[in-house]
Amino acid sequence: MCIGLDTDYNKIPKFLLDCEYPIFEFNKLIINATADIAVAYKPNLAFYESMGTAGWMSLEMTVAYLRENFPDLFLIADAKRGDIGNTSKLYATAFFSHIGFDAVTVAPYMGYDSVSPFLQYAGKWVVLLALTSNEGSSDFQLAKLEEGNTYLFEDVLKKSASWGNTENMMFVVGATKAEWFKKVRKIVPDHFLLVPGVGAQGGSLEEVSMNGLNANCGLLVNSSRAIIYADGTNNFDKVARQKAIEIRDEMEIYLKKKKII
Amino acid sequence: MCIGLDTDYNKIPKFLLDCEYPIFEFNKLIINATADIAVAYKPNLAFYESMGTAGWMSLEMTVAYLRENFPDLFLIADAKRGDIGNTSKLYATAFFSHIGFDAVTVAPYMGYDSVSPFLQYAGKWVVLLALTSNEGSSDFQLAKLEEGNTYLFEDVLKKSASWGNTENMMFVVGATKAEWFKKVRKIVPDHFLLVPGVGAQGGSLEEVSMNGLNANCGLLVNSSRAIIYADGTNNFDKVARQKAIEIRDEMEIYLKKKKII
Repeated sequence: MCIGLDTDYNKIPKFLLDCEYPIFEFNKLIINATADIAVAYKPNLAFYESMGTAGWMSLEMTVAYLRENFPDLFLIADAKRGDIGNTSKLYATAFFSHIGFDAVTVAPYMGYDSVSPFLQYAGKWVVLLALTSNEGSSDFQLAKLEEGNTYLFEDVLKKSASWGNTENMMFVVGATKAEWFKKVRKIVPDHFLLVPGVGAQGGSLEEVSMNGLNANCGLLVNSSRAIIYADGTNNFDKVARQKAIEIRDEMEIYLKKKKII
Repeated sequence: MCIGLDTDYNKIPKFLLDCEYPIFEFNKLIINATADIAVAYKPNLAFYESMGTAGWMSLEMTVAYLRENFPDLFLIADAKRGDIGNTSKLYATAFFSHIGFDAVTVAPYMGYDSVSPFLQYAGKWVVLLALTSNEGSSDFQLAKLEEGNTYLFEDVLKKSASWGNTENMMFVVGATKAEWFKKVRKIVPDHFLLVPGVGAQGGSLEEVSMNGLNANCGLLVNSSRAIIYADGTNNFDKVARQKAIEIRDEMEIYLKKKKII
């Protein structure tokens, strides 16, 4: 399980607002309460950028805190970046070298040379958008291509799978589209999939697990709002822990059903 | 003409490195030397993010400086963002409200609800990626769709043109693809197009102008490296001005040829 640190200044408990870095304090308490349950954390950059320099500083402090106290956890920058080669290289520098993330989400629209600079970092990962969890995913991702009777997202999976390998690339597949997981697994049976949309966005964990799990698990299920905003009181971190345990326990059932553990 | 403030710490003249904010100082000198020639400036976010909090601060200072001294200029955040609705809304907050840009570049892959939050701000603009100037643009943007014998980028233009109007939306069309400008103009005859890739990326200004200009001009031609790094000495701002004048004068020829001025 991955916990999304989509930390919104307007949604955090009031008692934190007096701290110098309320966003960082909130993240720290969530991390301390859940770090033995999660395998990964995923801050979405928009929440930090919307606060400007102070937000960017909170992000750097959050990653530094995680690195120092929980060095084994996997850290994903949910940034959905992608630009021409020399510019993507700078984004890779920003997230991998400067801040110290393990992975970054990347948008595929600009093609190979917008993605490849992120793959040049040993031990780092690209998480490429394939089929997202929002309504607008049908606008272009589900466009039918002339060649091969495939959807655009299938073409993205096919082409990009050859750019990297199962050790430096995974794909975003939205949990609200569990019906599509079989199609995805036909093209990339062995890659890890990052699955947002469980919880607040309405995806079914059972459906996702039954269609998406492979022999190595192969799923990183993300939950953000359903965990970090489960409770708005001073007790929010304990309730977040409880929510995280519930999701982990539910996942355990499906992992056992599929004989993976 | 738009000048791209793709300011790279490793490429700016050495004498600026002793300043507290070298990136900002470089930008300020470029702006002072070219503000009467350019109509727009376009910092690419990757260059700032790669320097973390200090970079983000330089970006905010640059925009504040432009706003204060040259309030009529048009400011584009070249960020290529796009996320689910509530998250795109935060990116819009970051660039429009917090920093104060007039426009932001957005990637179309996630569809309508990833773009529409940027269109909710009165007087602000979305610059949507349609056909980019890099080699990888052929991977997906030039995929042929089953329906209507169109390329994906044509579908992006058709669908998204109905999401906004000519007063809040423009499109990125790469200058290295002047042959495609006729196709673009068939679908969006009246929209402004932002054209990167003139200069360092090898696009021909004449070809772009002849095929892309409309009755209201309709083209915002961007040049970054060819202007800001035209010279590496203490004289860089004067040489940048000279380069900017050359490009403006060349554009004037095509505007006259097309009887727009």
